[in-house]
Amino acid sequence: MQKKIEELKTILAEVDDLDRASGVLGWDQEAYMPKGGAEARGQQLGTLQRLSHERFVDKKTGKLLDELKKSSSELDPDSYEARLIKVCARLYEREVKVPSDMVTEKAEVTALASQAWQEARAASDFSKFEPHLDKVIDWSRRYAELFAPYDHVYDALLDAYEPGMKTAEVQAIFDGIRPKQVELIKAIAGKEQVDDSILHQNFPEAGQFAFGKEVITAYGFDWDRGREDKTTHPFSTNFGYGDQRITVRVSEDYFNPYLFAALHETGHALYEQGVPKSLARTPLYGGTSLAVHESQSRMWENLVGRSRVFWGHFYPNLQKQFPEQLGKVSVDDFYKAINKVHPSFIRVEADEATYNLHIMLRLELEIAMMEGKLNAKDMPEAWNERFESYLGITPPDDAQGVLQDVHWSFGLMGYFATYALGNLVSAQLWEVIQRDMPDMDDQIAKGEFAPLLSWLQENIYQHGSMFEPQELIEKVSGSKINGEPYLRYLNEKFGAIYNL
Amino acid sequence: MQKKIEELKTILAEVDDLDRASGVLGWDQEAYMPKGGAEARGQQLGTLQRLSHERFVDKKTGKLLDELKKSSSELDPDSYEARLIKVCARLYEREVKVPSDMVTEKAEVTALASQAWQEARAASDFSKFEPHLDKVIDWSRRYAELFAPYDHVYDALLDAYEPGMKTAEVQAIFDGIRPKQVELIKAIAGKEQVDDSILHQNFPEAGQFAFGKEVITAYGFDWDRGREDKTTHPFSTNFGYGDQRITVRVSEDYFNPYLFAALHETGHALYEQGVPKSLARTPLYGGTSLAVHESQSRMWENLVGRSRVFWGHFYPNLQKQFPEQLGKVSVDDFYKAINKVHPSFIRVEADEATYNLHIMLRLELEIAMMEGKLNAKDMPEAWNERFESYLGITPPDDAQGVLQDVHWSFGLMGYFATYALGNLVSAQLWEVIQRDMPDMDDQIAKGEFAPLLSWLQENIYQHGSMFEPQELIEKVSGSKINGEPYLRYLNEKFGAIYNL
Repeated sequence: MQKKIEELKTILAEVDDLDRASGVLGWDQEAYMPKGGAEARGQQLGTLQRLSHERFVDKKTGKLLDELKKSSSELDPDSYEARLIKVCARLYEREVKVPSDMVTEKAEVTALASQAWQEARAASDFSKFEPHLDKVIDWSRRYAELFAPYDHVYDALLDAYEPGMKTAEVQAIFDGIRPKQVELIKAIAGKEQVDDSILHQNFPEAGQFAFGKEVITAYGFDWDRGREDKTTHPFSTNFGYGDQRITVRVSEDYFNPYLFAALHETGHALYEQGVPKSLARTPLYGGTSLAVHESQSRMWENLVGRSRVFWGHFYPNLQKQFPEQLGKVSVDDFYKAINKVHPSFIRVEADEATYNLHIMLRLELEIAMMEGKLNAKDMPEAWNERFESYLGITPPDDAQGVLQDVHWSFGLMGYFATYALGNLVSAQLWEVIQRDMPDMDDQIAKGEFAPLLSWLQENIYQHGSMFEPQELIEKVSGSKINGEPYLRYLNEKFGAIYNL
Repeated sequence: MQKKIEELKTILAEVDDLDRASGVLGWDQEAYMPKGGAEARGQQLGTLQRLSHERFVDKKTGKLLDELKKSSSELDPDSYEARLIKVCARLYEREVKVPSDMVTEKAEVTALASQAWQEARAASDFSKFEPHLDKVIDWSRRYAELFAPYDHVYDALLDAYEPGMKTAEVQAIFDGIRPKQVELIKAIAGKEQVDDSILHQNFPEAGQFAFGKEVITAYGFDWDRGREDKTTHPFSTNFGYGDQRITVRVSEDYFNPYLFAALHETGHALYEQGVPKSLARTPLYGGTSLAVHESQSRMWENLVGRSRVFWGHFYPNLQKQFPEQLGKVSVDDFYKAINKVHPSFIRVEADEATYNLHIMLRLELEIAMMEGKLNAKDMPEAWNERFESYLGITPPDDAQGVLQDVHWSFGLMGYFATYALGNLVSAQLWEVIQRDMPDMDDQIAKGEFAPLLSWLQENIYQHGSMFEPQELIEKVSGSKINGEPYLRYLNEKFGAIYNL
């Protein structure tokens, strides 16, 4: 059996090497590539992805996995070997169902769709994107049918990002919190509003980076095993054990975009840096799902990085970086400004209280598209109706509405829910952390993050993808994903800020 | 036949995609990768290189090439198709001879050798490198035997970098110029020496980059299809049509290292940027050999960038960048300083008059190693003896002698000669250019490089690797590589500077 495990790991290592190489090419494409390189880069990425897919779904892999599954009853089901076999078998069963020509077709459809989306968004003209979105929907429906029979047609899409989770589960969770989030936002709207004009001053890039680096380092990011670069859209990507990149963008006339994205990506990066080397070059290496990953980015960005105790420690240093801009602003006014609640059109700029509503409307629209209840042409109206109903405002144009996100043009259907689930998980874990370490706030108030990082390391990061997300969250918190902790968190935090 | 050509091109495109992806990973390794990423990156590069080799030497490729060769007699021998078949067949015959275990063995030997070399050079202790060099020699001898029968055991090594060229040809060329270069250096040593202390002032990085960018742009580098980054060792690398990178290093207390390396790498880059898109994703895409490539880097670095007419135009702008450092230095004094001739130990810092001698001694030592006349243990003494005889000085230690270059530790035997051949080719082409365009100097004196670039484009760059190097040079200059033009160039230039 050990010999077969080694054979499997040889295949996995090759697949992983190809995928990480794609990662490097993708990162460079965003961070440094001159525009003339786009066509060749697309070809290279296409080749690497095809080779990776072909190697993984090879019959040899299937045969090996069948044999290993048969003999894995001898193993402790929580052992590394048993988990490796289980996770690989799940991935294999998924990938082998997808015919090569559908992989190629998706690449072609989305190459055109993403180009059309860029033009459509720039012109705020949905009609340019509409036919491409129909093709993405059509492809996604056919993809979902590969996994029939199913409880819900959307399940296969969700499962790719949130292994083991069902559409009905997500709907039940979201149904439970939606009215309460809407209620909170209405309550806040009736109170005196926060003035965040202090954040819209000139903050030179060098000072922002210097302060960011101080916090990222204090969080525990290992610079010997990672670096930070600039891109148009921030992201985090891993090139194998020992090489974790984060990317950020900087706005010199608005404080938030750099710092909070940097802390967000650092959260993803700390998770990846905490996965042990023993899992490297296998599918167990890396975060277990997008929701659990997002729980980490949101925790370090918001639960830590937008907390009053955090700024009690760091604000004097920020004032030193920007004495003219912030020297006379109190820490409480600054804290309120960075936590201003305000329904707005763009998801990535949304505050903690409204953010989930942006996600829920997308999920509903995606499900309706998959169920055949909506087609591309119906989307702008459906979007605006829901936006008005959840957030009380109507997008002035499609660029600020249905065209704002890149995901559908990349064929990423089933992805959005994980953003909101991540928020919920972050608060659910946070309650456990507070219980396990009653002095956590005192530690953060001193700028000490090692205890928090150790806890996360032991309870989450070290497991990589050994456990499915719901399994891991239940193991750590005693229950599957539920929305109550996040609602308690929002109500307590914004109750204090807005005197509710 | 057209169908078979397309089949071949599909294989070639995949191989090229894998190789260019390796290029991106290698570039990032030097430019940005955190040190923790080394192990994973080595594995990824190993996988990409193995896959590329396997795809190319697949029996399918061989069969296709055999069939194409048979029917290629119908083709114009200078046509794209005929050249593609010829070049691919040559590469295939070479690569298919190398057993996979020798490819793997080389990777293992050189991984350890390059690590040992770094330690040996840092400690200036040849004994740390000696056993590894013996392994590299042993591997190289076995590699050469794969190509028996041969005229000379060194031929196969040379042929990998300079297709079609024989050891005897190179020896004859070098034997013809060596005594004359030695003589020139002796004559210069008897004259009043040049003072280059003005180059050893503080030159802030930003000013160096600004001036460099001005010249690189004037040369005709297309920034939409390329960029410049910093690395420890400068290099130039191509990621496919539309994406050409150059890398540089900057010393703030010495003017030469940034600018002349930048112009050197720009020379390589202009060649690659000039190869037409129609050749992309095949072995015809890119410069035809290292010597012809080096002729371009040395031409733009030296024949243009260290010429009096060039500085007549650009020196006032350089003075504006560095008014304190150079405001009172005349253009003639500056010109002499950057062209100072002075025997020195380190090849990469050598001036135009002494540089080839550094190469010749390496070539002789490599040939002796391959012939079995020298083993690793003999190298320090053999190095120092030749150095004394050619350059009149003896390295004070092995770090400044036999240990200075990284090449052997990478298993790059057969590579060095191309550096000196490149110098010769640059002057040989230059004489043709001067004849074809008598006003070339006037153009350069006005900062106009478009006529020069057009000439190179038409005569060299557009052909990519369609012609073998000797074939191309003969086609353009009327004769194969010969040393006379370079000797004329050196004698004229340094005769004027040193009043010989």
